[in-house]
Formats: sequence, C-alpha cells, structure tokens
Amino acid sequence: MNPQTRLVEVRQKVLKQNDVIARELRRQFQEAGVLVISLVSSPGAGKTSLLRETLRRLGESNRVAALVGDLATENDARRLAESGAPVRQIVTGTVCHLEAEMVKTALQGWRLDELDFLFIENVGNLVCPASYDLGEDFRAVLLSTTEGEDKPLKYPTIFNTADVAVITKADLASVVEFDRQAALENIQRVRPGMRVVEVSAKTARGTKGGTAWGIEPWLELLVERRAGALAREVAK
Amino acid sequence: MNPQTRLVEVRQKVLKQNDVIARELRRQFQEAGVLVISLVSSPGAGKTSLLRETLRRLGESNRVAALVGDLATENDARRLAESGAPVRQIVTGTVCHLEAEMVKTALQGWRLDELDFLFIENVGNLVCPASYDLGEDFRAVLLSTTEGEDKPLKYPTIFNTADVAVITKADLASVVEFDRQAALENIQRVRPGMRVVEVSAKTARGTKGGTAWGIEPWLELLVERRAGALAREVAK
Repeated sequence: MNPQTRLVEVRQKVLKQNDVIARELRRQFQEAGVLVISLVSSPGAGKTSLLRETLRRLGESNRVAALVGDLATENDARRLAESGAPVRQIVTGTVCHLEAEMVKTALQGWRLDELDFLFIENVGNLVCPASYDLGEDFRAVLLSTTEGEDKPLKYPTIFNTADVAVITKADLASVVEFDRQAALENIQRVRPGMRVVEVSAKTARGTKGGTAWGIEPWLELLVERRAGALAREVAK
Repeated sequence: MNPQTRLVEVRQKVLKQNDVIARELRRQFQEAGVLVISLVSSPGAGKTSLLRETLRRLGESNRVAALVGDLATENDARRLAESGAPVRQIVTGTVCHLEAEMVKTALQGWRLDELDFLFIENVGNLVCPASYDLGEDFRAVLLSTTEGEDKPLKYPTIFNTADVAVITKADLASVVEFDRQAALENIQRVRPGMRVVEVSAKTARGTKGGTAWGIEPWLELLVERRAGALAREVAK
C-alpha cells in the first residue's frame, strides 16, 4: 500500500473518532439549551471583529461565551475579551482546524446550562475545517468583500458544510469594487437556498438591494435560531 | 499506536517522497536557466491579480509561464491566460496545497529551456502549503492590507518557509486603516531580515515611507533574482 492510500485511511479513522465526540457534544449543548455557532473563513475575513461586536451586543441581554482557535497566538482571545464575555483560546500548533476533542477540553469547568450562546471561532482556513464536526448547531462561513466574489466556487466544500453565508466588510463593498450580485449568485450555485447575511462590524443597520444589512440582522438571525432550537427541544 | 501518531508518521513519509521529487525539479530548473517563483497566501489576498499583471509586464521582454493550483475551478487559469502567457491549471480536489509531483505532471510537454520565468500559484491557504517544497527558487508569501497586520504572528510557519513577503492591495491601505508599521514589524519579528515588497496590481510605482512600492519594484526584484541565479549557475 502506498503512503498516500494509508494517509487517507488513517485520516478516515481520525474523522470517525471526531464524529463520535461531536455527537456527544451536540447532545450536551441541546440538553443545556445553549445555541452553538461556529465561524469559519479565510484568514483576515473578519471573524474576530464580527465576533467581538456580536459578543458585546448580544451580551447585553444574553449569556454569551466564545472559544477561539489559532495556530500560534492568543491575540484573538485578548481582542474578544474586550467584549466582557468569557473567552478561551485554543492554540492548535500546526493543526489547521479545530477538532471536537479540542472543544471538549476547552469547555472543561464551564457550566453549559448557564449559557445562551456559545461561539466557536475556527482557525482561519477555507479547507481544513470543512471535515470536522464540532457539535455546533450551525456553521457560518464568512466571505469578505475584499476577498472577491469567486470564493464559493473555489472552496465549494466549506460552503456546502456551512448553514449560513456571512458577507463581511460590507461597508467596503464599493471601495473594493465588490460585485455583490455575482457573489450572491456564486453562493446559490454552490449551495442553492443558502441563507446569506451581509454585515459590517462597524454598521448597525443599512439597506442594500432592498435587504437589511449590518450587525443587527445578524443578531436577529442568531436570536431566531435559538428560539427555533429551544422550541424543537421542548417538542421532543 | 493511536491513529493520530500513525497519521503523523505516514505524513512524514509522504513529505519525504515530495522532497525527492522537488530536489529533482530544482536541478532541472537550474539547468534550464528558468527562475521559478511560487506564490502562497490566504484566499483573496490577490495572488492571481498580481500574477496576471506580472505575466503581462514581464512577458514584454521575457519568456514567462505559470502553473496555478485551485481546489475546484479553472477560473484562475482563465484569468491568467488574459496575459497571453502559457498557463496550466492544477485542480487539487480536496487537497489544500500543491505537491512536487503535481508540478512535475503539469510541466509535461513544456520545454523549460525556452522559459525565463515560471510562476507557481499555490492553493489559497496559509497553513497546508508550508511543508511542501515545489522545487522553486524562491517562495513569496502575500499578505493583503485588507487582511490585517497580525497574519505573520498567526501563521509563522508559512512566513518562515518563504523568502520574500509581498504586501498586496497597497492602494487600499488607508481606506482599510492598515497599520503599515505594525505589519512590517510583525514580519521582522517572525523572520528577521525578511525582504518585503509592497505592491498593487493597479499601481506601477509610488513611494511610501521613503520606499518605492507598486508593481515595478516587484518586477525589478524578479529580474535581479534571475540575474543572481544565472551568475551562480555560471560560477559552478
């Protein structure tokens, strides 16, 4: 057997172990009534800025917390802690994604039933995080206006494993000549029916092509998702 | 032995095979007198725009060609072909980096001694490409002003395996409140003495903090590197 074939086989075993842990995490999250949202994107798409603003605003009337993954630094945890929410950093070393086991370990000592929302910011990468379930309720993939409109076509797997597409830095759209229509079409081509929110960590609410954009529509989506998740849990 | 340990071992064997092929490629490139430059960056940092402009301008008085890696599409090859240079796309599927074997296969049928410059655009990723030698003469890591200044600290390995740092979208620096000084310091912290070029695919030449920036200083660096490489080859 050549090394490449063995690599794939060993990797499948690692993924299977990950799924077992993720399933158990999901059960615990649902039982505790905490909505868990993971964020994935390329480096510099604005995950940490969006999350800091989300924690600050959502934290005014909800119990929020965050885990944040990075290869080498604790910078993101420091930036997020400015929001006042509890934050823990997961330093992954050379690993380009978070795994369910890392999430499980990082959560030790936290009472899940004392949280309404838990955010998990993945390592900045549009490839590696795709295959790893973290037990989240839903996954948001971020795409910044400064990256260009073609990213959904070039990284279809990560868009296919995500539930919501978040277009960030919407305030810079015209400066960087972002083709909004092309971006929306590319998202729908890769994942028809995918929900899209357009945000900017600097803008509360605006209107684009008849649609509300900014941080507020994003927060409304989160609150709505949590209400839906709680209703489903009660109905069980 | 647990699967993670085995994963690391099998991966090391794959890397070793890659190094053997990369070494042979490097020998061929040097013998043919072609300077081979690889470009790595996160998705959307502007590799393809910089490369298209580079091929167009450098191609006026040099023989240039490019290989371009992407997970799923041939968009980049189409964009690059607008420059008039020969371009081949390498579609990697789910693999988040190029490997020496892929480069070797993609080069079949091309006469290396008929080229002056060969560019290899890697998959957009700041993690996976770091470990794979492609036989290039030097590796340029791109960092766009829209990504933020902290990327060298967060992705130290890729900066450490690269020879030149290229700050792209320099024309947008003030709009996105890019802290140039912090970025330069972070690059030097990770890799002291690293050469830095600031470019924009839209600007031929400008001046920032007493330093020339734009596409022309980048082209001058390439021409200078090729002259140096040829001189070393002759002196052998």
